[in-house]
Amino acid sequence: MLDYAALNALAAVVREGSFERAARALNVTPSAVSQRVKLLEERTGGALLVRGQPCVATEAGQQLCRHIERVGMLEHELREALPALGMGGGNGEGAERVTVRVAVNADSLATWFMAAAAAFAKQEASALLDLTVDDQDHTAERLRSGAVLAAVTALAQPVAGCNSEALGAMHYVAAASPEFVERYFARGVGARTLAHAPSLVFDRKDRLQARWVRRICHRSIETPRHWLPSAQGFVEAARAGMGWGMLPASMAADAMRTGALVELVPGSVLQVPLYWQQARAAPQLLERLKAAVRAAAGSGAHALR
Amino acid sequence: MLDYAALNALAAVVREGSFERAARALNVTPSAVSQRVKLLEERTGGALLVRGQPCVATEAGQQLCRHIERVGMLEHELREALPALGMGGGNGEGAERVTVRVAVNADSLATWFMAAAAAFAKQEASALLDLTVDDQDHTAERLRSGAVLAAVTALAQPVAGCNSEALGAMHYVAAASPEFVERYFARGVGARTLAHAPSLVFDRKDRLQARWVRRICHRSIETPRHWLPSAQGFVEAARAGMGWGMLPASMAADAMRTGALVELVPGSVLQVPLYWQQARAAPQLLERLKAAVRAAAGSGAHALR
Repeated sequence: MLDYAALNALAAVVREGSFERAARALNVTPSAVSQRVKLLEERTGGALLVRGQPCVATEAGQQLCRHIERVGMLEHELREALPALGMGGGNGEGAERVTVRVAVNADSLATWFMAAAAAFAKQEASALLDLTVDDQDHTAERLRSGAVLAAVTALAQPVAGCNSEALGAMHYVAAASPEFVERYFARGVGARTLAHAPSLVFDRKDRLQARWVRRICHRSIETPRHWLPSAQGFVEAARAGMGWGMLPASMAADAMRTGALVELVPGSVLQVPLYWQQARAAPQLLERLKAAVRAAAGSGAHALR
Repeated sequence: MLDYAALNALAAVVREGSFERAARALNVTPSAVSQRVKLLEERTGGALLVRGQPCVATEAGQQLCRHIERVGMLEHELREALPALGMGGGNGEGAERVTVRVAVNADSLATWFMAAAAAFAKQEASALLDLTVDDQDHTAERLRSGAVLAAVTALAQPVAGCNSEALGAMHYVAAASPEFVERYFARGVGARTLAHAPSLVFDRKDRLQARWVRRICHRSIETPRHWLPSAQGFVEAARAGMGWGMLPASMAADAMRTGALVELVPGSVLQVPLYWQQARAAPQLLERLKAAVRAAAGSGAHALR
């Protein structure tokens, strides 16, 4: 049997980022945490943590963290089935809480995903969510590395050990303010004009603008770029005439209705299908999160289509 | 004289994240980019890049990038003064564009900062903004490392080589939905109840909740935490009853007026003074950005106080 107190200490350091904070969370001394982690490292014969600010798990460390997380969820289920084990009251008091780590893309988080998170958290008083944001083309990597147990991702193909389920597609419109369009695209939207009009790009991983340009021009164009890592900021920047960008259609809808934003090329919506991937043979808790995710993805003003 | 074509290649790789994309941006072959960077590395006698996805500058690489960025801005100024050098028309066509890298905290970006960015971008048609988001306690590190030329930061003391200027304070309220307060804080807000009520924390660097708890309880309490790295999501999650969190007062104002959110402890606002720090002897362009930042920080519904 593995040393679960030690595994728990390791997971706490990774979760909290430092030995001191992990110690506080576990209500032990930092040196006790340090000893437990060292013990584990001696047994596994390798470093489990990269000590730094914050402390980060090595690949082996991640595997152990993933294991303890799963065990925690199974324990959570057991306690539900055997209340005598002392799960605590419905108000969350004294409850053993379990944290579910999920990677989600920024645009989902800014639109439909919060409804899923809120519904799940309300229903599962003893579960906490640990959300990590990344580009939809990169959330699957976090699943692969074991950093999260589930992800909203653009990758349809199941990651090893995971199930994949289609959620629907996020629709993106290439939009800008009318003044911006008049200033930069009076002669039409093409390779020449796109090479000079400032575009909005979320971060280095964001390829949506490039993908849309390739579709319109049938080749890549280097567009001038503002880097702006904020979903809400994107819409604001487009409205303010900073640049054109690929905006989630549901976030741009109001401004497009009033004419504050216009589509660069009418009807050129880019669809990004999204998938829910989660560890196979997942605990019930994750299944219930999936149900909340499925419901939120399919309803409301920001529903996937 | 330094080899500026090579420096430019290095900066492009760091900006774009890969040799291929840098090559496309510079309109040369990837092997030309690679050769130029290698040449620089031979001259400086050390690695300037950590090759990976994305490629990242080493400390020496960052210093060179910072230098080329400053030279770019000086050149930009020269071209303004000597239009014969061929700066291009007012519509940005053919303009040599300069990118200004700035670190800003997420809550500023979600509230007052976008107005500054938009005003600056509108006024400076040939300048692009590269915004990096980090916690207000950590943006100064990015300034120190040379990754950015200016930052919105909670650090008052000037970073070496920088000037610091007070912008005003961000006000945070500890708030939650009325149902949440009734469920978890019916017996008052104190160490016992805070230890059981789920809190909202932005990420591992976010210490605001912990700071407020220390102020209320005169000691640290381990609160259960949802991790939720989205400024907008924070307010939504609090409204939906997921947890309590430190919300920017200006973002919570509407919901507090209607009663959808209530303060946990009336009058316990946490003030976080923010500063604008930028490289000393900065080019005019950065001074004009500072003016836009100062104006935006001081006006509108999200003004700092």
